[in-house]
Amino acid sequence: MSKALPSRSENYSEWYNELVKRADLAENSAVRGCMVIKPYGYSIWEKMQRALDDMFKETGHSNAYFPLFIPKSYLSKEAAHVEGFAKECAVVTHYRLKQDENGKGIVVDPAAKLEEELIVRPTSETVIWSTYKNWIQSYRDLPLLINQWANVVRWEMRTRLFLRTAEFLWQEGHTAHATAGEAIAETKQMLEVYATFAEEWMALPVLRGVKTPNERFAGAIDTYCIEALMQDGKALQAGTSHFLGQNFAKAFDVKFQDRDGKLEHVWGTSWGVSTRLMGALIMAHSDDSGLVLPPKLAPIQVVIVPIFKNEEQLEQLRARVSDIVKELKKRGISVKFDDSDANKPGWKFAEYELRGVPVRLALGMRDLENGTVEVARRDTKTKETVPLEGIVEHLSTLLDDIQQAIYDKAFAFREANTTPVNSYEEFKEVLDGKGGFVLAHWDGTSETEDKIKEETKATIRCVPLNAPEEPGTCVYSGAPSARRVVFARSY
Amino acid sequence: MSKALPSRSENYSEWYNELVKRADLAENSAVRGCMVIKPYGYSIWEKMQRALDDMFKETGHSNAYFPLFIPKSYLSKEAAHVEGFAKECAVVTHYRLKQDENGKGIVVDPAAKLEEELIVRPTSETVIWSTYKNWIQSYRDLPLLINQWANVVRWEMRTRLFLRTAEFLWQEGHTAHATAGEAIAETKQMLEVYATFAEEWMALPVLRGVKTPNERFAGAIDTYCIEALMQDGKALQAGTSHFLGQNFAKAFDVKFQDRDGKLEHVWGTSWGVSTRLMGALIMAHSDDSGLVLPPKLAPIQVVIVPIFKNEEQLEQLRARVSDIVKELKKRGISVKFDDSDANKPGWKFAEYELRGVPVRLALGMRDLENGTVEVARRDTKTKETVPLEGIVEHLSTLLDDIQQAIYDKAFAFREANTTPVNSYEEFKEVLDGKGGFVLAHWDGTSETEDKIKEETKATIRCVPLNAPEEPGTCVYSGAPSARRVVFARSY
Repeated sequence: MSKALPSRSENYSEWYNELVKRADLAENSAVRGCMVIKPYGYSIWEKMQRALDDMFKETGHSNAYFPLFIPKSYLSKEAAHVEGFAKECAVVTHYRLKQDENGKGIVVDPAAKLEEELIVRPTSETVIWSTYKNWIQSYRDLPLLINQWANVVRWEMRTRLFLRTAEFLWQEGHTAHATAGEAIAETKQMLEVYATFAEEWMALPVLRGVKTPNERFAGAIDTYCIEALMQDGKALQAGTSHFLGQNFAKAFDVKFQDRDGKLEHVWGTSWGVSTRLMGALIMAHSDDSGLVLPPKLAPIQVVIVPIFKNEEQLEQLRARVSDIVKELKKRGISVKFDDSDANKPGWKFAEYELRGVPVRLALGMRDLENGTVEVARRDTKTKETVPLEGIVEHLSTLLDDIQQAIYDKAFAFREANTTPVNSYEEFKEVLDGKGGFVLAHWDGTSETEDKIKEETKATIRCVPLNAPEEPGTCVYSGAPSARRVVFARSY
Repeated sequence: MSKALPSRSENYSEWYNELVKRADLAENSAVRGCMVIKPYGYSIWEKMQRALDDMFKETGHSNAYFPLFIPKSYLSKEAAHVEGFAKECAVVTHYRLKQDENGKGIVVDPAAKLEEELIVRPTSETVIWSTYKNWIQSYRDLPLLINQWANVVRWEMRTRLFLRTAEFLWQEGHTAHATAGEAIAETKQMLEVYATFAEEWMALPVLRGVKTPNERFAGAIDTYCIEALMQDGKALQAGTSHFLGQNFAKAFDVKFQDRDGKLEHVWGTSWGVSTRLMGALIMAHSDDSGLVLPPKLAPIQVVIVPIFKNEEQLEQLRARVSDIVKELKKRGISVKFDDSDANKPGWKFAEYELRGVPVRLALGMRDLENGTVEVARRDTKTKETVPLEGIVEHLSTLLDDIQQAIYDKAFAFREANTTPVNSYEEFKEVLDGKGGFVLAHWDGTSETEDKIKEETKATIRCVPLNAPEEPGTCVYSGAPSARRVVFARSY
């Protein structure tokens, strides 16, 4: 067992980086800013994918696949869009390497220069809307409800595993509708799908809100978002759903004939979540001993560690455990019986703690005699001795309890770290103190928002969807405000 | 309904291209050589993925994800490998676009040139083995059994939907082992996984064999393959599994300490199948009316078309059908009840035929009275009237029968188009006649292989794994040969 993790209070950032590596979730690759997602980390991502994909399909969406490359000219067709993405594009300029004549090894073949450069997709609105042009003629072709699971590249200068990487994995939904109303309803529906996923699967409470114009997606009319709070008091945007209006339909000339035979531009949405969710999951729940995973996303939900002195004892333990393992599997609970003798039980305990396995059973000869087993919870680090009789039922309930407890803890943390403030002094005090979500009045101008960001590094995370009307005055300018918005420093 | 498909006998190639487009499987994108996989096509690919992924996991493999980009210098580290892929690489040279000062719009920013060019992965051996160097120290770290689902890019000049595209989707397994024997066993095991998948899921009989040195993967010691026969008598390589020896371990200095404390280079394998399988699936079974899909891969297995004159009749039919639909779904059979009144039954029949739905039920008022339903099979185009009572059981058996029948038909076709020949005259005659697999003696030299390819466009598809010893003489050179090999023209 290697040395302990840095603690969160000591160095939150180092704690995160080390945890990601030691729990075998991901690591940096030799390619600047690109990560390797390791098998254990990827198996969590696969569970997220499966759950989200099922939810997308239940809401009527189909998967498809569009090209990795976008012709440079496409990116330019929507003005705000290219402005937003041009600065961080990986550009393919050639399509061949060759042996250099001067013995310098393999070089780019200058004769194989592309006529038009290709951009590695940072997001696929342009290539998808250029395709939709041919797919949509009539109102009968609408709504068009499509999702894509893909890799995208944004050339970020400062990267961190999962949170900000040059290449990342994500899904991007792209839908087309006959009316603005239907498109807005879709935008909100998918936001709710994300919020439900975050809360029910990730055990992560989220605020649902709308971005200010400053923070909007490049090319959207409105960007809806879910915002989560991390343990260091910083916010993390966990998913976005954009109402695109007719922007991309106009840029790519996508029209449909309505029921009256009139040609109209189509209304669009796009929405996405990415491997960034892995970062949110890790940072929201884990502790100084390692990962804490909500059972619904844990690759191993229950680990059974036998305590034995010799092969004969192990055989007895194995015999008693095999039915339990079978029964757990039958219920869809993933279980590992770790009978390897390469490592001592204590080493195994620490290892599964680091990897966030929600429940650990330890079973020795005394337990066999007594008909009991030691059950340890990862989230609370509590242990209890329970009868082997009925253990499967017990574990099934316990996993549900843990899922709920992890959510409740995160929710209580967020509540304790959401602070209404009524002056700029108070605003800065809270930010520099415990941080968290700061609820403040704002005058609605980008100017004030910019100033506050410049002076405090806090941004408006969102205007909450369910924010009550509450007249007040902007903490910065003193101008009138209709409701509080949510400020925070963020990832 | 648009006009009929071109027939296979008329123009096989056009038939394929049109079928892929009309059945909504895929289309060409605006980016040269890159395809859009449409929702219906993608849903077949998803079924393939799920089945393969389950088989990989059952054989002990885990998924992970490695970077899209490969530093140019990495590609060069294995000599045969770079030789094989350098000519068809998409090369990223810059990481930013900018507004051109001369008003030419968006241009590549020359200030943002990469120090070292990045290659969009054509395959990931190099980036993965550079990572394995850090993951493998001891025999305890072996075997390392990893798979990746990803997109790759090979800049092909002549592309065809699914069969040969610049970007394609695939999985690539990359494993590391302590001994040559274990690595070879893994190579063969994964070939058998592919063969089983092809035969049991795709209903596609395949030959298992080894490639000649000419046809080997760039960087492999041995390439094993499965080869299928298409309806036009051409072969299609449907999957490959490579024994890499220590080639990549040496190129990337990947060593492990064995049980005796000695440092040794690791032994490797890699294996992959791609969206090319979609091409094989389409070409092997489909007919002049459209797709024929084996039930196990059909997104819709049973379609029910009600025949009605008014809403009241439809209601009665719907009431009778709803239990059947529920019961089918409970058994995991995907069913669609197409009660739209936008199109007539005849139109629907043709549409589902085009899309390869294995079984179609048609149900009218007379059927309700008689307690019967018309059941039509897509593969044989036969119809029968069967009692509604017990229909679910009937359909469940029928789908199994269809899966088997499609396989049997493809198997019989392959048998009828596999021809042993004993002279070069006969060889050419068969090739120019019905084509298919030609079993011929070959002297074992690349020279002869090249000559035959040059003169006839036929290549050695494989040396079959189970080929019986049968001394003979090479059809080209007359030199002695120990066994027949399989020649064919191919995709």
